[in-house]
Amino acid sequence: MSNLSADILATLEKQAIELPSWAFGNSGTRFKVFATPGTPRDPFEKIADAARVNELTGLAPSVALHIPWDLVDDFGALRAHAEGLGVSLGTINSNTFQDDDYKFGALTHEDPKVRQKAIDHHFECIDVMNATGSRDLKIWLAEGSNYPGQADMRGRQDRLHESLATIYERLSGEQRLVLEYKFFEPAFYHTDVPDWGTSYAQVAALGERAMVCLDTGHHAPGTNIEFIVMQLLRLGKLGSFDFNSRFYADDDLIVGAADPFQLFRILFEVIRGGGLNNPDVAFMLDQCHNVENKILGQIRSVLNVQEMTARALLVDADALRDAQISGDVLAANAVFMDAFYTDVRPALAEWRESRGLPADPMRAQLDSDYQRTIEADRVGGVQAGWGA
Amino acid sequence: MSNLSADILATLEKQAIELPSWAFGNSGTRFKVFATPGTPRDPFEKIADAARVNELTGLAPSVALHIPWDLVDDFGALRAHAEGLGVSLGTINSNTFQDDDYKFGALTHEDPKVRQKAIDHHFECIDVMNATGSRDLKIWLAEGSNYPGQADMRGRQDRLHESLATIYERLSGEQRLVLEYKFFEPAFYHTDVPDWGTSYAQVAALGERAMVCLDTGHHAPGTNIEFIVMQLLRLGKLGSFDFNSRFYADDDLIVGAADPFQLFRILFEVIRGGGLNNPDVAFMLDQCHNVENKILGQIRSVLNVQEMTARALLVDADALRDAQISGDVLAANAVFMDAFYTDVRPALAEWRESRGLPADPMRAQLDSDYQRTIEADRVGGVQAGWGA
Amino acid sequence: MSNLSADILATLEKQAIELPSWAFGNSGTRFKVFATPGTPRDPFEKIADAARVNELTGLAPSVALHIPWDLVDDFGALRAHAEGLGVSLGTINSNTFQDDDYKFGALTHEDPKVRQKAIDHHFECIDVMNATGSRDLKIWLAEGSNYPGQADMRGRQDRLHESLATIYERLSGEQRLVLEYKFFEPAFYHTDVPDWGTSYAQVAALGERAMVCLDTGHHAPGTNIEFIVMQLLRLGKLGSFDFNSRFYADDDLIVGAADPFQLFRILFEVIRGGGLNNPDVAFMLDQCHNVENKILGQIRSVLNVQEMTARALLVDADALRDAQISGDVLAANAVFMDAFYTDVRPALAEWRESRGLPADPMRAQLDSDYQRTIEADRVGGVQAGWGA
Amino acid sequence: MSNLSADILATLEKQAIELPSWAFGNSGTRFKVFATPGTPRDPFEKIADAARVNELTGLAPSVALHIPWDLVDDFGALRAHAEGLGVSLGTINSNTFQDDDYKFGALTHEDPKVRQKAIDHHFECIDVMNATGSRDLKIWLAEGSNYPGQADMRGRQDRLHESLATIYERLSGEQRLVLEYKFFEPAFYHTDVPDWGTSYAQVAALGERAMVCLDTGHHAPGTNIEFIVMQLLRLGKLGSFDFNSRFYADDDLIVGAADPFQLFRILFEVIRGGGLNNPDVAFMLDQCHNVENKILGQIRSVLNVQEMTARALLVDADALRDAQISGDVLAANAVFMDAFYTDVRPALAEWRESRGLPADPMRAQLDSDYQRTIEADRVGGVQAGWGA
Repeated sequence: MSNLSADILATLEKQAIELPSWAFGNSGTRFKVFATPGTPRDPFEKIADAARVNELTGLAPSVALHIPWDLVDDFGALRAHAEGLGVSLGTINSNTFQDDDYKFGALTHEDPKVRQKAIDHHFECIDVMNATGSRDLKIWLAEGSNYPGQADMRGRQDRLHESLATIYERLSGEQRLVLEYKFFEPAFYHTDVPDWGTSYAQVAALGERAMVCLDTGHHAPGTNIEFIVMQLLRLGKLGSFDFNSRFYADDDLIVGAADPFQLFRILFEVIRGGGLNNPDVAFMLDQCHNVENKILGQIRSVLNVQEMTARALLVDADALRDAQISGDVLAANAVFMDAFYTDVRPALAEWRESRGLPADPMRAQLDSDYQRTIEADRVGGVQAGWGA
Repeated sequence: MSNLSADILATLEKQAIELPSWAFGNSGTRFKVFATPGTPRDPFEKIADAARVNELTGLAPSVALHIPWDLVDDFGALRAHAEGLGVSLGTINSNTFQDDDYKFGALTHEDPKVRQKAIDHHFECIDVMNATGSRDLKIWLAEGSNYPGQADMRGRQDRLHESLATIYERLSGEQRLVLEYKFFEPAFYHTDVPDWGTSYAQVAALGERAMVCLDTGHHAPGTNIEFIVMQLLRLGKLGSFDFNSRFYADDDLIVGAADPFQLFRILFEVIRGGGLNNPDVAFMLDQCHNVENKILGQIRSVLNVQEMTARALLVDADALRDAQISGDVLAANAVFMDAFYTDVRPALAEWRESRGLPADPMRAQLDSDYQRTIEADRVGGVQAGWGA
Repeated sequence: MSNLSADILATLEKQAIELPSWAFGNSGTRFKVFATPGTPRDPFEKIADAARVNELTGLAPSVALHIPWDLVDDFGALRAHAEGLGVSLGTINSNTFQDDDYKFGALTHEDPKVRQKAIDHHFECIDVMNATGSRDLKIWLAEGSNYPGQADMRGRQDRLHESLATIYERLSGEQRLVLEYKFFEPAFYHTDVPDWGTSYAQVAALGERAMVCLDTGHHAPGTNIEFIVMQLLRLGKLGSFDFNSRFYADDDLIVGAADPFQLFRILFEVIRGGGLNNPDVAFMLDQCHNVENKILGQIRSVLNVQEMTARALLVDADALRDAQISGDVLAANAVFMDAFYTDVRPALAEWRESRGLPADPMRAQLDSDYQRTIEADRVGGVQAGWGA
Repeated sequence: MSNLSADILATLEKQAIELPSWAFGNSGTRFKVFATPGTPRDPFEKIADAARVNELTGLAPSVALHIPWDLVDDFGALRAHAEGLGVSLGTINSNTFQDDDYKFGALTHEDPKVRQKAIDHHFECIDVMNATGSRDLKIWLAEGSNYPGQADMRGRQDRLHESLATIYERLSGEQRLVLEYKFFEPAFYHTDVPDWGTSYAQVAALGERAMVCLDTGHHAPGTNIEFIVMQLLRLGKLGSFDFNSRFYADDDLIVGAADPFQLFRILFEVIRGGGLNNPDVAFMLDQCHNVENKILGQIRSVLNVQEMTARALLVDADALRDAQISGDVLAANAVFMDAFYTDVRPALAEWRESRGLPADPMRAQLDSDYQRTIEADRVGGVQAGWGA
């Protein structure tokens, strides 16, 4: 007998997690990028792999693109390709950190010509959005400085506002701008959008369709991330998640791999704040599978989110409130932990089967010919990575 | 010949740093509070010690009080006592963390009666402000929870807003509410105002006279504090500093003792953002002298702020801008570091003498009878500390 | 049907976790210690509460004492009292951080008279050990400095060796010295034994019966604690655990409460390295129940250790090795996570009942009169805390 | 008049800092490596740049090589080239992190064939040492795992010992093995030599000529690095420094740029422990000049070390000891800070000139044709970087 109620299963059925196209390409550290057989050579192949994840899990109906890595001549064709495989094209991610002109900034650069170039890149991204039908333009601002004194942080903040305002104005009424913050890296002394407060202040100054993106790996050590989730939902500004996990810095590991209980707490606050299956709050992955199989890594990731969502839904809200109101610390914590420690995996497997999905999507992929086929077929050409 | 220009000296002459009355009382860790001879037994003696710091340095013309630790029957008498010693009474700090009722929160508590009690305490603080002529009511929200699930973080945030709004309304048009954030401690899982973003969101919802207090020891490891200074000045919401320094947690060490270069960077951003000698931005200390002489510790602290302000004022702003604009990383950093490495101490000593102050306030205190006298006089009674 | 094999249950049956007497007294932060009804007033009452935890769980057959907090006139009587309640007296913890003479160090102090006083205190602890039949003398070296330059770190290290050697020589051939390291607090700049490397180097210089104590809350942010467990077991120097959990600093929360998966990984390495049910490796708690019921907090803690040990024992070692050898990252991780996510609580409840213990010790305590009785009986006197 | 005594200048005259050849090649983050005009294309050009740093500063008489990045057909020719430019070839750094075979480890790999390959690489490095006359073989063990369960940490530690022992035996009686530890990166869950304790335990098991390398950027947040310096000197196992600086992770910034006071404290402990100008303790840089001019970045770096050494030598040891012995916290700290705040730059400039060096080596390089010449000459070919 399942420990997941019909209500919970109905809620889970609506869950959708967007996959990043770049997760299927090669990635690594500054020391080494390991290549792997079968890696896609172009956006079409990335989308095929993403669609495979969705086919086996029913959890990943859209794919985020990264421009220029995923630039194609004909986005209509890419869109048709995706839809043919049962997925849609999702968030468009811009890139202003890999051009020599952006060595000292892009949207914040001292030189108006460089700023305009970066703005134009975002206009190009909006053109892509119009072609793909994407709603969200996501900006990770990889700008900052390495040495104290190198940059005028205040002037950069003001220029950032101007640049973002110009981009925001270009969006159609259905489109959104989502601004991602990050504690450090690639800059080492200061980052222009280092924390949720900065992202919030910047998007609040733009308008209603500007939102914050919370990447779970982009915080200082010890940060209570679920508190930020709560706060951004309260302020109506949580636009999207970039899920992954970390032990130290922005490790970009499989979501839930480093601290499963943290993921549980985050998802609990998502539910508490009305963010689950809320169209305003996009669930996305942003991960790197440096040493593990990439397709399996993505399958494992969406399953982790699903399983942990199920656990978070199991929290007995009434019992929790009673314990909280009465100041019974151990009772409240026990209600919380009871949900976390409940093994939802058998019930989810059974439910998957009932919906025509494999009970164990990891096993299904391993038992299939998919990986062997792509390894045989994807020979020659240049494997996709972060360089292109 | 002085390396400090007349302009710089004129700027430094206006500098004022508020001292915390509690720095003169005993403090310690959860493991031990060491007592020391000469420690004040009441607010009058604390203010005498604070006035001594001002007498020797000319830097500390006001004293912050903590309620109830500094409650007296007659605040008019305390005020007269202070003014007689050449100092004024400054910020009033509330305390909602030492009453048994506040075990699970005060302004955020589930129980409206406890919230009202905490609000009433702030009303009492405002009464004190009216008696002392204080402008600022500072609220350090020492509330939170120790275990996941223990508290409803979202509900607490909403109740916090209501409580703060009630207190804010009680203020006169000249008075301000300053909300201090803190990463952790005394709560270990969540703090209700853990970061500048939360403090900013809360005070922005109150009104113009609600501001953020930045305590330099209240951040996650690795946080770029000067960035936050820049951002809060930009947003017009930096109400005050609580200066101190730290290696690990909220160590409350002498400002500038742990990372002098960080203090330099903070003060540079204060100047850059128009926060120096700006009445909107109060400079205060919040420190604990657990193992060192308390009066000397406060003298050392205000001198550290003064010396580092002098260094920050030495930055050649034009040369810095030129280097920043041209993307010359090393030149910009060199301009910055040159100011930091300049030894301003001889020039400051000379300048002090020219103003009738001791060239070396530390030495002057050591050579005086002040400490011997208070050790002889302050016998009997209960030494001031955090308990009362 | 249980998911725990007879082998696993036989292993779990041998598990013993020592309780700290001070967990039953009041504790708090430097800001406030909340008192609670029913708190023990003396060591006899603390031991009664500890024995209650053992009675309900079968997991806690011994109690650690802290000297001087637990000094009694007649340790024979205390021992008989404990044994009458089914528990024994365990590790003796010394205290050289609460005497005014120790403000600047104890075993490391510049003054040989202070060092001798601290050594004499340890001799007194050894006398207690002889009376109680305790094997281990645990030394947490709460010494260090707050300001750079304050202390000669090198000289202190050398003096520490001399002091420890003198204490070590006094031990009988069956007794051990266990040296605990701590990253920071109560000292804020340097701690004389801040890391496992220092503790290891110091005890290695003493002899075979000198060992390292690993407190799970005493590390820098991000430290891989299970790696240290592995290394100390490999080096034959893991003498004991002080279990607790933390989000930020040395929070002393219930073990497993902050990061259950970390506790799982630690226990896995304990098993991997032969440390489980190994008499050389003592399992102890070192926690503070600042806001929750203390007896229930201790019950929850030993159950957490037991449950997580059961999960760690479930790891399919052969499958794990196969995956590791073949470099199959996801398969290896899956074996690991499968054990973690297995719900062992029903099987443990059933097993407890089969042994005459309550299926749910938390519920049993709540349903009993124990708490009500001690609240009624323990009236008057001074509640135990860290001060005495 | 100089504030540096003849004794101090005589000590400074002996100071030598080894430069890393790779600092002159391109480097960056996983997101982008920016190319710069004039970057060396081969080891000969790298050594020319390194020699230029020495020519202008008199501080950098040797260059460390990285194998295979600096492999040449004829090391005799490279050595002659170096000596012709006034520098020698120094430490040989091995590389076991950029070959596909090393994806899951090298000296620790499960597969003996991979381990042998990694050992053979070190034998090749020893061959290079024999050809270059290098004393030190430095091993940075970039091995570890990304996911819990992925690797058998204990088995890897044992295999590491075996591999290191095999390499150690191959060294001649004059040669040394230096083992570098690193907290994290490129592995994200566990690193096989993450801390000084592990490096110490491993080299202690090898023999007298095996030492620890301390990279100042390789510690957890908040780590007291000077304490480790003190401890390793005390244990006779500090083999070398890799100097750089950091705000967050292993940022590899210019030494002293992020926290000058930390560098001061480190150098003070070096002097205190007899490590200055001690042939057993090699001073090296390990940095990346991602956004700044590389030659100027190296000049700045060695000057920073020199200046800070001068400051550390200024500490009045007798006054410090007196204050420490008497427990006068503020006096001891004042002696310490007085040295740190003294501006030694004018005296050093004067002293440089007296020795036939440019007073301002940075300015001398900027005023010279060196950079223009290499930009004009080094056209075509592949710029050196970490890939080859």
